[in-house]
Amino acid sequence: MHGEPSLSAPSTALVRRDVREELLEAASALMTERDTLDLSLIDIGERAGANTAMVKYYFGNKEGLFVALLERDAQHTLEQLLRLLSMTIDPAEKMRRHLNGMLRTYFHRPYINRLLLQVLHHQSQERRQEIVDRFTRPLTEAYRQLIDEGVAAGLFRPLDPMFLYFQAVGICEQLFSARILLPTVFKVEQFDRSQQERFIAQTIDIFMAGIARTPPSAAEARSKALAADR
Amino acid sequence: MHGEPSLSAPSTALVRRDVREELLEAASALMTERDTLDLSLIDIGERAGANTAMVKYYFGNKEGLFVALLERDAQHTLEQLLRLLSMTIDPAEKMRRHLNGMLRTYFHRPYINRLLLQVLHHQSQERRQEIVDRFTRPLTEAYRQLIDEGVAAGLFRPLDPMFLYFQAVGICEQLFSARILLPTVFKVEQFDRSQQERFIAQTIDIFMAGIARTPPSAAEARSKALAADR
Repeated sequence: MHGEPSLSAPSTALVRRDVREELLEAASALMTERDTLDLSLIDIGERAGANTAMVKYYFGNKEGLFVALLERDAQHTLEQLLRLLSMTIDPAEKMRRHLNGMLRTYFHRPYINRLLLQVLHHQSQERRQEIVDRFTRPLTEAYRQLIDEGVAAGLFRPLDPMFLYFQAVGICEQLFSARILLPTVFKVEQFDRSQQERFIAQTIDIFMAGIARTPPSAAEARSKALAADR
Repeated sequence: MHGEPSLSAPSTALVRRDVREELLEAASALMTERDTLDLSLIDIGERAGANTAMVKYYFGNKEGLFVALLERDAQHTLEQLLRLLSMTIDPAEKMRRHLNGMLRTYFHRPYINRLLLQVLHHQSQERRQEIVDRFTRPLTEAYRQLIDEGVAAGLFRPLDPMFLYFQAVGICEQLFSARILLPTVFKVEQFDRSQQERFIAQTIDIFMAGIARTPPSAAEARSKALAADR
């Protein structure tokens, strides 16, 4: 028992982090499975094999746990976007990869967008601003930078980046927040891997064609037609 | 008093319909103002100048009122789409007008999409299917017909109409369901008329360019390049 203390006796810090992460993962799994944010502390505790006192210990209350879950999930998306921005590939390719990453994140964590909105709605004005400053603003600023790059490179049409933020999130996200319609309206019980890939491809295709600068040939044709009209 | 009974003494049926509609309108106004579906019967009754017994009389309970509100709002969107389908204009123009109508509906009733999803979540399997059959399926079927027309006319690329339904709703709707981000992230306190028109124009432009068939010239250029590569 003497030779490998780190295996047989994990440090308290390690145990602590594990329970905390298991609680987050339990909330994440339940939100995904049940397609709702309406969970009780008892449900979350049971799934994580912990009692509700642990939730209170680590997060204060359910809202605290939700903010921590948002932090965990948003972190990932933001890091992905910042990594993309630092790469030396063209802005259209960056946007394509960003959409791809966002769509794949939604497949794993279809609740993220709703979680953000619910957390914001349930917080005080002050706390709300704090959450937005931590998660959402850095993301929208990175996003604006990506758009600016694309417009500057002549790859994207001049577009309002604030509008475009909502349009991009919406075109990627609606399938996930409205997925109760898949079995009820469309008789799709389970999205298989090939459907998933086709959905990702179609979303990226539509969005990229939608924001692309009108090709020079078409723009020239139009200005010639206008000139001929005069 | 004798000559104009219909003005001085409205029929009971007329009074009844008015209270019912006022309750629906009160719920609609509160959902819009407060940006939440989390209303109490007391709030709704107060706004309508009626008591909660009236809600119970007309709708059974709050869920009943929500379904009736959904019916009122969905009816309008469905009628608009069916009218469009019957017109003798090209499918791209139909799609443009459909998106325009949908976006304007969201400006007036930004809660509609969330209302549909919440109502579906809170109903039994059986009742859920009934609601979907009444509101959502006719809409998605009309939508599929519009896509098929556009593909057949060579105006739209071949696209999965189920995916496209979610993509269209999402690109139009996200700004409204996430409008808590407008003041907090983007420092926009109120959307003015000109912003509204610019948002509508940008959304329609992106979506229409996104679904348009690749113009023949570009397709030819690509197949030539492929041939040269061989």
